Amino acid sequence: MQSFFERRPPALDTDQPSTRHLQDLIRSQTPVSIQVLGNSELEGTIQWQDTDYLALNPGQGRPLTLIRRSSASVIRPLL
Amino acid sequence: MQSFFERRPPALDTDQPSTRHLQDLIRSQTPVSIQVLGNSELEGTIQWQDTDYLALNPGQGRPLTLIRRSSASVIRPLL
Amino acid sequence: MQSFFERRPPALDTDQPSTRHLQDLIRSQTPVSIQVLGNSELEGTIQWQDTDYLALNPGQGRPLTLIRRSSASVIRPLL
Amino acid sequence: MQSFFERRPPALDTDQPSTRHLQDLIRSQTPVSIQVLGNSELEGTIQWQDTDYLALNPGQGRPLTLIRRSSASVIRPLL
Amino acid sequence: MQSFFERRPPALDTDQPSTRHLQDLIRSQTPVSIQVLGNSELEGTIQWQDTDYLALNPGQGRPLTLIRRSSASVIRPLL
Amino acid sequence: MQSFFERRPPALDTDQPSTRHLQDLIRSQTPVSIQVLGNSELEGTIQWQDTDYLALNPGQGRPLTLIRRSSASVIRPLL
Repeated sequence: MQSFFERRPPALDTDQPSTRHLQDLIRSQTPVSIQVLGNSELEGTIQWQDTDYLALNPGQGRPLTLIRRSSASVIRPLL
Repeated sequence: MQSFFERRPPALDTDQPSTRHLQDLIRSQTPVSIQVLGNSELEGTIQWQDTDYLALNPGQGRPLTLIRRSSASVIRPLL
Repeated sequence: MQSFFERRPPALDTDQPSTRHLQDLIRSQTPVSIQVLGNSELEGTIQWQDTDYLALNPGQGRPLTLIRRSSASVIRPLL
Repeated sequence: MQSFFERRPPALDTDQPSTRHLQDLIRSQTPVSIQVLGNSELEGTIQWQDTDYLALNPGQGRPLTLIRRSSASVIRPLL
Repeated sequence: MQSFFERRPPALDTDQPSTRHLQDLIRSQTPVSIQVLGNSELEGTIQWQDTDYLALNPGQGRPLTLIRRSSASVIRPLL
Repeated sequence: MQSFFERRPPALDTDQPSTRHLQDLIRSQTPVSIQVLGNSELEGTIQWQDTDYLALNPGQGRPLTLIRRSSASVIRPLL
């Protein structure tokens, strides 16, 4: 049982300020711009986060977009 | 035996929302666009996922394409 | 309980010189330029750091910008 | 002895579908195209894989090329 | 206590040849050129290293520049 | 003592085929071309490897160049 747990990847660390900051952006549904490596920039509201991805709601009824966290270099609330 | 397990990489975390979201896309065979670092964009349906790769079925009888998860920056269902 | 801790990601290592150097830039609110992979460059003062992100205050009342640490290739105090 | 094992990097996980899929490409010596970050594309047959590299046989008697797995973003059998 | 240690990131491995090689460049204050991903190139002397960053002294009284180790692709002593 | 070891990064895995392949290139002093992310290409003979870097001897009496392994995407013996 112990080795089973040891094989699991780390869970999202809710003690980290960035995790809570993103959680605030999710709760308030603040529109954000996310800069993705390779220079594209996506806009929408973040629906949820986990260790590996941010789920972005691009709005206008379009389906959720998964953005790899390691590729999401800059997250900026839209003014 | 314990050290053997400790040497293994982490398994796919099925508790993560993104793992389940991708699993849904796999089950429903939803056509997706996957943006790969270096700016190429691939389309198809995801056949399976593991910790390191997504297997994309590009359709038209072409063989599976393996995409490195860390390079797959954006996954977007096609409208 | 032990396995719970083992699943957690590593905390910010306050013994590392870089962690303390960044903490000094935060305390002194030194304006910095941060070069982000993909060639953009952001300016502001760092508000806080954690393992995964730097929170940059771009000034002029604009909201905090999260910059992924692994994408923040160069951090340079502005002269 | 235990700490010795714990210091070792994870071994190739032969339970992962992608590991077995690549092993199949190796056994069948299927010609593949491997897209490398930075936009180059290499062709050949994969000779072996380990955790960090794919060894590509470019053919025509040329020596093995090592491709860093984390840089090999897309692996595609040639039609 | 044990779990506290297990949560800490790995320390700089002073047994690694590269750690010692960089330490020599630091002691001798050898001018170096560091190529950063995204194609910029920085020159100066390395002041210290830790697991995540190199601290570069660009000279002429300018403040230390932190360079993310994972982004510092090539380190070359200047002739 | 145990926690000390657990904090150390993984050592170079000499059981991996790629480690031994590179060790062969080092012993035979085979001239290689190393493609670095961001599209530069360096030539020389590899002097040593560790977990994080390859040390390249560019020849003509020039000092060793350290190349970050994660940035060295392709290693190719020169014909």
